[in-house]
Amino acid sequence: MEREADVIIVGAGLSGLVAARKVVTAGKTPLILEADERTGGRILTEFPYKDIPLEIGAQWIGDTHYRMQALAKELGVGTFPQFETGDTSYDFGDQGVLREEEFYRLNAAELAKWKEVLATVDVLAAEIDPSQPWNAPHAAEWDRITAGAWLDEQGMGPIGRTMFDICSVGILAVPTEEVSLLHMLYNIAVCGVGAELFAESEGGAQTIRFVGGTSEIPKRLTEELSQYIELNAPVQLIEYTNDSVKVSCRGGLVAKGRQVIVALAPTLAGRIMYDPPLPAVRDQLTQRIPQASAMKAYAVYDEPFWRADGLNGQLISDKGPARMSNDSCIADAETGVILAFLEGEQARTFGRWPQEQRREAIIAELTRHFGPKAAKPEFYVDGEWASRQWTRGCYNANLGTFGWTHFGDALSAPIGPIKWAATETANEWSAYMEGAVEAGERAANEALEAM
Amino acid sequence: MEREADVIIVGAGLSGLVAARKVVTAGKTPLILEADERTGGRILTEFPYKDIPLEIGAQWIGDTHYRMQALAKELGVGTFPQFETGDTSYDFGDQGVLREEEFYRLNAAELAKWKEVLATVDVLAAEIDPSQPWNAPHAAEWDRITAGAWLDEQGMGPIGRTMFDICSVGILAVPTEEVSLLHMLYNIAVCGVGAELFAESEGGAQTIRFVGGTSEIPKRLTEELSQYIELNAPVQLIEYTNDSVKVSCRGGLVAKGRQVIVALAPTLAGRIMYDPPLPAVRDQLTQRIPQASAMKAYAVYDEPFWRADGLNGQLISDKGPARMSNDSCIADAETGVILAFLEGEQARTFGRWPQEQRREAIIAELTRHFGPKAAKPEFYVDGEWASRQWTRGCYNANLGTFGWTHFGDALSAPIGPIKWAATETANEWSAYMEGAVEAGERAANEALEAM
Repeated sequence: MEREADVIIVGAGLSGLVAARKVVTAGKTPLILEADERTGGRILTEFPYKDIPLEIGAQWIGDTHYRMQALAKELGVGTFPQFETGDTSYDFGDQGVLREEEFYRLNAAELAKWKEVLATVDVLAAEIDPSQPWNAPHAAEWDRITAGAWLDEQGMGPIGRTMFDICSVGILAVPTEEVSLLHMLYNIAVCGVGAELFAESEGGAQTIRFVGGTSEIPKRLTEELSQYIELNAPVQLIEYTNDSVKVSCRGGLVAKGRQVIVALAPTLAGRIMYDPPLPAVRDQLTQRIPQASAMKAYAVYDEPFWRADGLNGQLISDKGPARMSNDSCIADAETGVILAFLEGEQARTFGRWPQEQRREAIIAELTRHFGPKAAKPEFYVDGEWASRQWTRGCYNANLGTFGWTHFGDALSAPIGPIKWAATETANEWSAYMEGAVEAGERAANEALEAM
Repeated sequence: MEREADVIIVGAGLSGLVAARKVVTAGKTPLILEADERTGGRILTEFPYKDIPLEIGAQWIGDTHYRMQALAKELGVGTFPQFETGDTSYDFGDQGVLREEEFYRLNAAELAKWKEVLATVDVLAAEIDPSQPWNAPHAAEWDRITAGAWLDEQGMGPIGRTMFDICSVGILAVPTEEVSLLHMLYNIAVCGVGAELFAESEGGAQTIRFVGGTSEIPKRLTEELSQYIELNAPVQLIEYTNDSVKVSCRGGLVAKGRQVIVALAPTLAGRIMYDPPLPAVRDQLTQRIPQASAMKAYAVYDEPFWRADGLNGQLISDKGPARMSNDSCIADAETGVILAFLEGEQARTFGRWPQEQRREAIIAELTRHFGPKAAKPEFYVDGEWASRQWTRGCYNANLGTFGWTHFGDALSAPIGPIKWAATETANEWSAYMEGAVEAGERAANEALEAM
C-alpha cells in the first residue's frame, strides 16, 4: 500500500499529533505513521476499575505550561487542581513514620543543608542556555562528572542526600549517578522554575490534571486528524533526498512525502534505518540517550480515608518499593486513589518481581504510612513502560557524562528533509507534555519552511 | 526471496563467521545475513597504496589469544611480531619532545605513582568474575562512580593521570569519565593479564600481526562458508517462537530457521524489531551500551626512517590530535608506516574536521616526534567507524554507571531461540578478536544444544 502527503510524521505521541495539526493549519497534508495500535505515546489513561481514570503515563501540567493550557482549552478539555491539602508522611532510617512537622523538627540541620544545595544548583543552572547547554561557561567541567559524584561532595548528610535523590529521580527517573551534572542542571534550566522543580512541591510542574484523563488531549487531536493517521505502522526505513522522503513500514505500507518529522524519543529514532545513513555524531548520540525507568502503581479504595487524618496522600521514604506517592483521586470523587511511584533503581528492581509480590510490598508500605485502611484496596494495578515495545522507558531520556558536550548539538539539528520532534528536543519543559508541544510545533515549522 | 537453514546468523563479522563454521562442523546448516556488502565486520584491511596492507580495523592479537592463534594456523594465515625495538617518544605539558629515558627521569615520582595506581587496579580487578561482574563483592560501590571520578581521587599528578587516561582510552576508546569503575575493572579482568593491559606495553594484547592483513582471517572463513552467506541483507525483523525463527531483511529476503544467533554489537542488535518484543531489561541494556569512538590514521613513507634514529615509532602525548602512535610496517618491508590513534574525545573532535585539515595536524605532530622526514609522507589515509552504518563505532562497547549491576545479566542470556554473539558477550578477551571467537563458539553451542 502507498500513501502520499506533504509531511510524513513518525509517531502519534503528543509531539507528532501537534506537528500534524500545525501542518494542516498551514494548508499542507500530513500523514502520521504510528507503530502502536493507539495514539498518545507516553500519555495513557486507563479505566480498569469503576470508570476511574488512572494515568499510566503523563498526568500533570504545571502553572507555567502555557502551551498545554491553551491546547486543553482549545480542545475543550477541562482541568482540576492536584489535591495537596494535609501533611506528607516521611519514613527515613530508623526514625519510623513521621508527619511533616516532626520530620522537619528532627532533621532540621540536614534539611537546611539540602535546601542550601538546591539553592546552589539554582545558581549553577542559571548559567545554562537550554538550547545549547554545551556552550555554558562551565560545560566541560560539569559534563565530566556525574550529578551523583557532585552531590557526594556537597556535605549533605544521609537524609538530605536521599531527599535530593528522591526528588531528582522523580524528575529524571534514573539515579543521579547516571546523568552528568550538566544534564541535571540542564533539566532544571529547561524548566525555568529553578531547583524548586527538584524540591518536594515539584516546582509547579504537577499542579493541574485533566478532567476525564490526560488521554482526552491526544484523543481529541486524533479525532480531528483521523484521516491523516495510520496505526499499526512501525517505521523500518526512511529513504531521503534533499526534498523528498520515502518511509517504509512493517506490513508493507510505504509513505511518500517532501519532509519527514521523526516524533520519537531519540533512542527509538536511532532504531530506524536511514538511507543515506545519518552522520556519525547523530548516530553516536542516539546510542547514548536511553529512556529512563519508571513505574506507576495505583491502589484504589472506597474513599480517600487519609484526608480525614490530615494527610495529603504523599509519602517520602528512603525505603521502598515506592519512595514517593500522592493522592490521585479525581475531583469531587468519593473513591480514593493513591499513586505510588517506582523510579530509577526502584522501577528496575521491583519491575523484575512478579506483580503479586510487588503489589504486596507496595500495599504494606502504604499501610505503614496511611494506616490499616490502606491494607485492603478494592483494586490494584501497576504500569511499566520499558517493556512497552514502542516506548521502552519513561518518563524521558537522559544523557550521561560527555553526552551534551560531545553530541548534544545533534539532538534537534535537521538533516536534510528530516526534522526531529519529541519532548526531548524541546527548549522549554523538555521531558514534559509542554515540551512535546513546543517540539512538535518547532519541527512542523522547520518542515513547512523547507517546502 | 526465501531461504531456510537450521541456524540463522545475523552479521558476518568474525563472531558470526566462527559461529557458522561451528554449525557446519556439527552437521547443521547455517545461513549468515550480512547487512554490508562485505564480511569481516570490524576487521578491515585495505590496500590503498602500493599493496601495503593497512588495518583500518582490528590489527593485533596477543600472546594469550590462543583461539585466534589456532584459527590462524588452521586457516593457513601467517603471523609476524609487532615491531617494538627502540625508544618511545613523549610530549607532555611544556617539557617538549623527550625520549623514554629522559621522560622517565624527569617524571620519576609521577610515573611511580601511576604504576602504583595500576597495581591497585589489579588488586580490585581480581575480585571480578568476568562472567558476572554484577556479583563482585564491591560491585554496587564500583558501579555508582565513573572510573574517571575514582582516578581523580588516587593522588596522581597531571602526567600520571594523563598517562592512565591515554592507556585506558587506547583500550576503551572512550574517556574514563564515561564508564563506571566496575566496567573498567571488568575490562581488565576479562583479559586476564592484569592492569599491564593498561600500561604502555598493552599487556601482550598487541604483539602479533597477520601476514597479508587481518582480513585474511575473515576472507578465508568466507571462502569456506560462501554458500551460507547472503550479503547486502540488513535484518529488520526477527519473528520467533520457542523453536522457530523468521528473519526478514531490507530488500525482501526472508530466512527461516530453528535458531538465530545475533552476532552484532549490542547497540546494533537493539535496532532490530523483535516479535514478540524483547523483555524490558534486555531492551534497556541495549539503549545503554554505545559503541566507542576510534579513528586510525596512517602515514606511509619510503622507509621506516625512525628506526635508524633508535625510535620505535611510538609516541605518547597529552597533546594531539593523536595521543599515541606506533610502527605499523609489515615484516621485512622497506616502506615505513606510522599508525596514529585518535580515540575517545580525540576521535570525536578531529573526526569532525575536514580530512585535509586533520591530515595536516597529524603530520605536524608526527614531525614533532620523528623529525622532518615525517613531514612528507608518500601517502595518508584515515578511517573512522562511527559513520559506517553497519558498525557505528569502534573498538567496542562500554557501560556507564549502573550498566553492569542493573542490566548486565541480559547481555548474553538467550531469549528463546535467540542467542547473542559478538565480542562484547565474551568471558575472555571481550572487545578483542579473541573474544569474538569465544562468543561465536559459545552462541553456536547454545543454538546446537537447543535443537
